[in-house]
Amino acid sequence: MTEDSWFTEKAKGFGMALKITAKIHDENSPFQHIEVFETETFGRLLTLDGLTMLTSRDNFIYHEMMSHPALFIHSNPKHVVIVGGGDCGTLKEVLKHREVEEVLQVELDERVTRVAEEFFPELCESNGDERAQLLFVDAIQWMADASASSVDVILLDTTDPVGQASRLFSADFYRDCLRVLREGGVMVAQSESPLFDMEIITSIHKAMHAAGANDIKTIHFPQCTYPSGWWSATLARKGQKLNGFRETAARKKGFPTRYYNADIHIACQSLPVFMNETLAGIAKA
Amino acid sequence: MTEDSWFTEKAKGFGMALKITAKIHDENSPFQHIEVFETETFGRLLTLDGLTMLTSRDNFIYHEMMSHPALFIHSNPKHVVIVGGGDCGTLKEVLKHREVEEVLQVELDERVTRVAEEFFPELCESNGDERAQLLFVDAIQWMADASASSVDVILLDTTDPVGQASRLFSADFYRDCLRVLREGGVMVAQSESPLFDMEIITSIHKAMHAAGANDIKTIHFPQCTYPSGWWSATLARKGQKLNGFRETAARKKGFPTRYYNADIHIACQSLPVFMNETLAGIAKA
Repeated sequence: MTEDSWFTEKAKGFGMALKITAKIHDENSPFQHIEVFETETFGRLLTLDGLTMLTSRDNFIYHEMMSHPALFIHSNPKHVVIVGGGDCGTLKEVLKHREVEEVLQVELDERVTRVAEEFFPELCESNGDERAQLLFVDAIQWMADASASSVDVILLDTTDPVGQASRLFSADFYRDCLRVLREGGVMVAQSESPLFDMEIITSIHKAMHAAGANDIKTIHFPQCTYPSGWWSATLARKGQKLNGFRETAARKKGFPTRYYNADIHIACQSLPVFMNETLAGIAKA
Repeated sequence: MTEDSWFTEKAKGFGMALKITAKIHDENSPFQHIEVFETETFGRLLTLDGLTMLTSRDNFIYHEMMSHPALFIHSNPKHVVIVGGGDCGTLKEVLKHREVEEVLQVELDERVTRVAEEFFPELCESNGDERAQLLFVDAIQWMADASASSVDVILLDTTDPVGQASRLFSADFYRDCLRVLREGGVMVAQSESPLFDMEIITSIHKAMHAAGANDIKTIHFPQCTYPSGWWSATLARKGQKLNGFRETAARKKGFPTRYYNADIHIACQSLPVFMNETLAGIAKA
């Protein structure tokens, strides 16, 4: 490590860089290259195949926005499934909800979770919760085998839709998710950057629609260390509209958050003109 | 220019990079080093002293959010002053409001505007509007000399609060702005990154409060090419609260925008938990 070492992620003519002071982990799991760095100002950085998964400093926004909107939209979320999410940050947020009785995390690569337990213990502090179950299997197969109408909320906390992970953004997979959801069940997929990836957001809407989702909505939030610094998640619901949420519960939530609150819940659904225009085109199609 | 040239801006352990295909302008004005680059995917890039001022691709968010919230909060904005704003992107947005009768832009460095006219003509297309006046003088002096209660909206579209520009973030300057505003007048300052610069946002609140502002509110929005990809503006009002806006007018606005709409106007005021907590501390102090 030289005195001026930077981790840099570049794609589509844009780059994000973090100054690193040490590489503290490097392994090739059966599925991917996992690295952990100490950075100068972002705490620790986890990368998979050279792409930023999270930093200590800013992961709270992504993890809170992947979990709390969906959980407060659902009227009574008892059974939750997380697809991916191996770093356990989303799991930790879900477990803050006392009404949740069971969370099943279906992550392909056990090594991601073991690395997170070692280097990001603050994200894994609830892994021992008796309501949590960690499964390390293929989510496509798991979802195909799962009982119909058995889950309230499904959180698709996946990597980018490239390679193997692209199957997790397909209408076939969403159809299985909807089958596994109970009536009124909510699913949410991380859906990339509004600035860079409107074609991905569009294709997610189309795939969810083709899969039979009753209502589909994209929310957005800042995410400094993901490409463009701006990120989105796309929600869909089985048999009901996404309008409304348990606002009183969100305002009185008995657990701490750093980004999410009831006002943000409402605000994150307001889309800029260019997103509305693009997504309105789909609705009419 | 090599085949793989990148413009990189690094500070506080974080970096943003844009792939550039050519440098098309380079000059030292009496005030600063002005450069313009062609980028691979962001159109053109304007830098001042090596710091990103704007790109063709994402400046619309910043310019719309610096202008439309303030203008739709004011009940009848006729006289507007822009401090800084030499690239004329904010000016262009202000002139979209038909009720505005006069916009005075007070920019120190005429060369920034001349360079913008040449390389960012789309931002300068309204510079010939008979309601627009471009002044190239020191804004501190201009504001000190301006008549009391003569302006409805002041937009502080400045560079970062370092060096000479830091005077534009002081209680003394804000006091002059408030003097120049009519009762009910609105001012807005670009106020840096919520993730990186809460101490700057805090100090702006304190300075505006010390200057006698009646109500102070920070709004936030994504801005890909500014540090952290997340940016803010802080509004203050003379003698009235900032609550409410001309919502019907905003919903029926007869001009195009790409980010701002009435829903975003409401949403951009909802702050994350950590910002509320920090700013609540000031209110009580």
